[in-house]
Amino acid sequence: MITISEVGPRDGLQSLNRTMPTADKIAWIKALANAGLCEIEVGSFVSPKRLPQMADCGDVVRAVRDIPGLTVVALVPNLRGAEAAFAAGVHKVSIPVSASRAHSRANVNRTVEEAVAEVAAIRALRDTLDGPRPTVEVGISTAFGCTLEGPVAEDWVIRLAGMIAEAGAESIGLSDTTGYGNPAQVRRLFTRMRADLGDLTGGGHFHNTRGQGLANVVAALDCGITTFDSSQGGIGGCPYAPGASGNIVTEDLVFLLEAMGLATGVDLDRLAKARTTILNSLPGETLYGHVKDAGVPKGFKYRPT
Amino acid sequence: MITISEVGPRDGLQSLNRTMPTADKIAWIKALANAGLCEIEVGSFVSPKRLPQMADCGDVVRAVRDIPGLTVVALVPNLRGAEAAFAAGVHKVSIPVSASRAHSRANVNRTVEEAVAEVAAIRALRDTLDGPRPTVEVGISTAFGCTLEGPVAEDWVIRLAGMIAEAGAESIGLSDTTGYGNPAQVRRLFTRMRADLGDLTGGGHFHNTRGQGLANVVAALDCGITTFDSSQGGIGGCPYAPGASGNIVTEDLVFLLEAMGLATGVDLDRLAKARTTILNSLPGETLYGHVKDAGVPKGFKYRPT
Repeated sequence: MITISEVGPRDGLQSLNRTMPTADKIAWIKALANAGLCEIEVGSFVSPKRLPQMADCGDVVRAVRDIPGLTVVALVPNLRGAEAAFAAGVHKVSIPVSASRAHSRANVNRTVEEAVAEVAAIRALRDTLDGPRPTVEVGISTAFGCTLEGPVAEDWVIRLAGMIAEAGAESIGLSDTTGYGNPAQVRRLFTRMRADLGDLTGGGHFHNTRGQGLANVVAALDCGITTFDSSQGGIGGCPYAPGASGNIVTEDLVFLLEAMGLATGVDLDRLAKARTTILNSLPGETLYGHVKDAGVPKGFKYRPT
Repeated sequence: MITISEVGPRDGLQSLNRTMPTADKIAWIKALANAGLCEIEVGSFVSPKRLPQMADCGDVVRAVRDIPGLTVVALVPNLRGAEAAFAAGVHKVSIPVSASRAHSRANVNRTVEEAVAEVAAIRALRDTLDGPRPTVEVGISTAFGCTLEGPVAEDWVIRLAGMIAEAGAESIGLSDTTGYGNPAQVRRLFTRMRADLGDLTGGGHFHNTRGQGLANVVAALDCGITTFDSSQGGIGGCPYAPGASGNIVTEDLVFLLEAMGLATGVDLDRLAKARTTILNSLPGETLYGHVKDAGVPKGFKYRPT
């Protein structure tokens, strides 16, 4: 069983310059869960001045946290965000830590070491909570290269992953924030991470900026990685021309995995219904992906979960 | 070193409903060769009634066959086509043999066994030629499934490959004509082919119909496959909506392989110039691909050939 962690409601919506109304976000997330997605990153707890599209994140979490079988994730850049996320009742927080020093400064305005210290503070806070405790996950962003710095040393990424584990993260993933990654690099990095960190090794967050997103997924599968982020319709992450999407497309990822004989639990027809909730809310928004238009092959079968 | 076999001038142009003038085809092929592509399928020797876009194939072959270092390939569906191809001076003929019986009937109007017999006839003709002898290559089409028949049994594909080897083909590739293939299937089939046929195992011809084209390339690389077909700008093969291209895109394939540390000998900037020859000749034609728009990563380096 492969876990697809849908990031559209967070990664997708936060990069649009219009805001999806709260009720529409909730309807979309419910439709995604109804399609079989069992983990959804529903928003980020950040300053509403910086990302007004995410200002309603607490309301969204409260509305969806009790959907049966759904792990509700929120991105939190710092301790303040984590406090709000825990208060709203998320099941998991995802903390970005940049491998690139320049990106860390630009993205969260702190050094990499300060970001790691924040992970430790969030873990300490989490350990004080009563009741079911949310998971503390970290995604190492710019792990495959940085638009500001260029190549990022693999040794440093591995060392940083160790520092993050030390700080108390329970799952550490690798993010190709810039769409620079390639399958050979994915194999090298995830192989080393699994050797060093074992079950603390988290998922892969790949972009399709240069068409290589699903190829990177296949490379990561070879290393035993079983969790992948993707975004319905590749929404939001398009810094370039049509077709040059950011996030890998959930529909295409589901097809790839199921065709390979790997169960995802996700139904493509129901996913198509979830797509209509985006377009009803954000008319004219560009959605990407191949499978939505091409359909599944004749004789295609889902794998039993 | 990986060989990228550019099929745009054949596979791409034959699926358009307008015809690129002969001089423009020659200019495009020269620009592709100048970008470093060392194998180009320049056309097909078929009935001009059926495919008027390919009626000038002999002229095209004669104009480009002496480009230094370039292997000039033509598709031939039968002995008559092979005679014309040999007379024009191709370096290689590529013969499609369908694994799907229904597709064989629809595509070349003969049974699979008749198509294999044609391979033997072409090989026999080739062996009578004086001077440097062109290579006889076969691509097994619908090897990964058929839009008419659905799944195609892997045992049958392997048996068919053996029959084709017996008939005298010198290289036997697998073609995902329908865009049905997935990386697990690619690995199974190419692994078995290499076990059975060794160095007679040819390249992979993958489509990106469901976004899986480059993932299939990575799977085939794992089996030791070193030749891949692709089409500049993914030209021509788009049966569906925008983005749902047919052939994998040469530019994206070059980036993927070079980023993985595998030399292709192809220069992306020169490839961009070749792209302009298409658009000058066929204004408004839709071209696909990610790398053309996204550019290469900061710090990207080509591998020495």
